[in-house]
Amino acid sequence: MIRSVADCVEALIGTYLLSGGVLGAVKVIEWMRIIPPQDEFAEYLHRRVSTAITDKMTTPEDINFLLNYSRNDVETILNYKFNDPSFLLEALSHASYIRNRVTRSYERLEFLGDAILDFLITSHIFENCRELKPGEMTDLRSALVNNVTFASYVVKLGLHKFLCSELNPTLDNAIIMFVDHQVQRNHEIVEDVLYLLDEEECIIAEYVEVPKVLSDILEALIGAIYLDTGGDLSKVWSVIYGIMHKEIHLFSSRIPQQPVKVLYEKIHACPVFGKAQVIDREVQKIKVGVTITKNDAQHTVYGIGRNKSQAKRAAAKMALKVLSSF
Amino acid sequence: MIRSVADCVEALIGTYLLSGGVLGAVKVIEWMRIIPPQDEFAEYLHRRVSTAITDKMTTPEDINFLLNYSRNDVETILNYKFNDPSFLLEALSHASYIRNRVTRSYERLEFLGDAILDFLITSHIFENCRELKPGEMTDLRSALVNNVTFASYVVKLGLHKFLCSELNPTLDNAIIMFVDHQVQRNHEIVEDVLYLLDEEECIIAEYVEVPKVLSDILEALIGAIYLDTGGDLSKVWSVIYGIMHKEIHLFSSRIPQQPVKVLYEKIHACPVFGKAQVIDREVQKIKVGVTITKNDAQHTVYGIGRNKSQAKRAAAKMALKVLSSF
Repeated sequence: MIRSVADCVEALIGTYLLSGGVLGAVKVIEWMRIIPPQDEFAEYLHRRVSTAITDKMTTPEDINFLLNYSRNDVETILNYKFNDPSFLLEALSHASYIRNRVTRSYERLEFLGDAILDFLITSHIFENCRELKPGEMTDLRSALVNNVTFASYVVKLGLHKFLCSELNPTLDNAIIMFVDHQVQRNHEIVEDVLYLLDEEECIIAEYVEVPKVLSDILEALIGAIYLDTGGDLSKVWSVIYGIMHKEIHLFSSRIPQQPVKVLYEKIHACPVFGKAQVIDREVQKIKVGVTITKNDAQHTVYGIGRNKSQAKRAAAKMALKVLSSF
Repeated sequence: MIRSVADCVEALIGTYLLSGGVLGAVKVIEWMRIIPPQDEFAEYLHRRVSTAITDKMTTPEDINFLLNYSRNDVETILNYKFNDPSFLLEALSHASYIRNRVTRSYERLEFLGDAILDFLITSHIFENCRELKPGEMTDLRSALVNNVTFASYVVKLGLHKFLCSELNPTLDNAIIMFVDHQVQRNHEIVEDVLYLLDEEECIIAEYVEVPKVLSDILEALIGAIYLDTGGDLSKVWSVIYGIMHKEIHLFSSRIPQQPVKVLYEKIHACPVFGKAQVIDREVQKIKVGVTITKNDAQHTVYGIGRNKSQAKRAAAKMALKVLSSF
């Protein structure tokens, strides 16, 4: 019996080899669970991914037109020349850009680019910061890899000007406000971007609204370059490093610390956080106060954020500022 | 004047070329900001990383001894043979394993491996699930890439038995409890691992404590394989795919959904979540109830978790179970 089953299997595989070729035979073997299912992904890692164009009739001029003829400008900023500009078009196409029927909008590239940025920066830290403790490596990575930092680079490089979208006053306004703020701060790159409010002699720090679309642009562009290079991570890294090298070196030599942790370490300041208060239910704004002691006097400062931990962070940053001032 | 400065620079670079070689000269040019600082990382991506051994006197027998002679067993499970078993030793060395003075403990490899897993699974989803919406891709990734899933694989494969650590009754107990639970559930891989408690006719679902060390083991092993292959991501992917392929296919064809979202979509059940209650301040346990309507009767079920959103998730899962039962 066993013998005849084996014969039968052999015959089946033989038939497939003749009719379906090697791949057909492999599929039969897989289906019979003789070998575990194979994945083509390992191969894909070294394979060129085809174009982002979904409509075969598209001409290069169509792409240039949809990009508002911005290809050269963006390539100069990124210091990267696209082999296939349709990847660039996809990376810059907001979901509202319905005029573009040639590629999808950027969300899928953003999903991919986000993971690439995280992996390459993690690898860089792993390789170059051998003396750091694991906790410090994590702090360094979160100072570099976050939406605020990415949005700040986009604004600093002026990449947001090339986003293709329909008119959206609310979104455009939010972008303009963040851009103004960054211009005033001379495009400083930090994880915590705070407004200072002075209200009736009490100091309040509020998180600046950073429109997600700004960090999306960087992530999508990185995803696009990865595909355009056929998955060449060292080329992708050259682009990322070209943009981020200053902060990579700066933060590596002096790792930005968590403000709440740093404040708790100032034992003489006796920091005490108050209860979180919801101050705006619609847009989820939370306010937290912290009381500190300085020169025998108590000071209370407040932080406002999207959630309790962000509000605490803002308050701690303010408290540290008060403690370091004379 | 300009001429003589240029001459001086040339001379300096010349001197460095003679004394410090090309790299020295490049460093001088970089230091003078003539060319932007270069990074060796792009090159590193294609370079073999040297051994994990910190003590040059170490013999292969030392490594085998410190691994408790488990190399073959682990290699068979992973279907991967290490070129340099010191990477394997580092991946399996808990911080408490002070007997190992040959490599560091696994935290740095875990930091690296975590980013590799995220990147490779993201790439796989991007490449293979072209029909998914961006939100679905994110849901699919979080169902696959999380500490509970990783810990479940480690226990299913029995890799936790090879962790090298000093006796730690609290940790060992937590591991044993999770292992027992997984054995009872036939090593099912899901994101939410819940205990059901029946207390005075009220249904409570509590999150099972998943010791972080278990998911750390998988992440550290992936980091170790990446270094051992000299950064060959397709070889790393073969190992990951060998472990995870069943759930990758299963979850891709039926994406696990967020239970809170699914419950809110059951409008006839009129789900109403109660306030979050802190039930154990020491270990941060939060309890949330949700009331649902079924066959004109109201039922309240509870979820317990480490934070409010986890507790809500557990409660929603229970509520969905009640709704689907007869």
